[in-house]
Amino acid sequence: MHSDPYMQAAIEQAQAGLAEGGIPIGSVIVHHGVILGKGHNRRIQKASAILHGEMDAFENAGRQPAHVYRESVLYTTLSPCDMCSGAILLYGIPKVVIGENKTFMGNEELLRSRGVDVQVLQDQVCIDLMQDFIAKRPELWNEDIGK
Amino acid sequence: MHSDPYMQAAIEQAQAGLAEGGIPIGSVIVHHGVILGKGHNRRIQKASAILHGEMDAFENAGRQPAHVYRESVLYTTLSPCDMCSGAILLYGIPKVVIGENKTFMGNEELLRSRGVDVQVLQDQVCIDLMQDFIAKRPELWNEDIGK
Repeated sequence: MHSDPYMQAAIEQAQAGLAEGGIPIGSVIVHHGVILGKGHNRRIQKASAILHGEMDAFENAGRQPAHVYRESVLYTTLSPCDMCSGAILLYGIPKVVIGENKTFMGNEELLRSRGVDVQVLQDQVCIDLMQDFIAKRPELWNEDIGK
Repeated sequence: MHSDPYMQAAIEQAQAGLAEGGIPIGSVIVHHGVILGKGHNRRIQKASAILHGEMDAFENAGRQPAHVYRESVLYTTLSPCDMCSGAILLYGIPKVVIGENKTFMGNEELLRSRGVDVQVLQDQVCIDLMQDFIAKRPELWNEDIGK
């Protein structure tokens, strides 16, 4: 169990995705200590180009008013890509906690440049989930945006 | 009818969204002259935080390989927000044709800084669709990211 219950919830989402045959990336959005939405990457499961872990968490959080997003923290097991970083910026999420950025470095620089508090844990469970998946299914990991 | 058949297809998507009671923004993704995916904003229709017009077009284009995105053009009736700009960058879409950026200016600067060819038509049909909607339903337009 991760010491941070929200990162633990994101990891459980990643593990749920893996169990479904998907890419093991999970995310949760937390508002004042309450999880508004959980999600995991569903590219393979739903043939979806947009359901990354973070996007799935936004989608499952439903239609929230602007002020809720602006008081929320997003947890994700992997550094957010350009698309997910853009969603974080669109909604004005002020803080992002990232499990790891060793297997993929997203657009943390853009997030920080726009004032987002970005914390990277380099969590070994998150790293192992991704590295094991990429070793086993490189064709899936490289399918959408190439190497 | 718009003189560009792809922008016309994006406008028809925006009009379809309006007819459903939604925000009138439409998009199409075109690969070597063939429309891969069409979409329109479904925030209201599906209580979705992520189905902007461009995202819906990506989703409806399905699971494409990297090289297809890199040879495609995205048409959208409104300047792409941070999230949709991020999706364009993630997939390496090289060219974006925008109906208008008068009612909302997205992150065209970021797109251009990353080498995307961005063209803005300032099309009056696109402008009127948005301005009429915002005048009639300002609470819906301002709901998600505020004013």
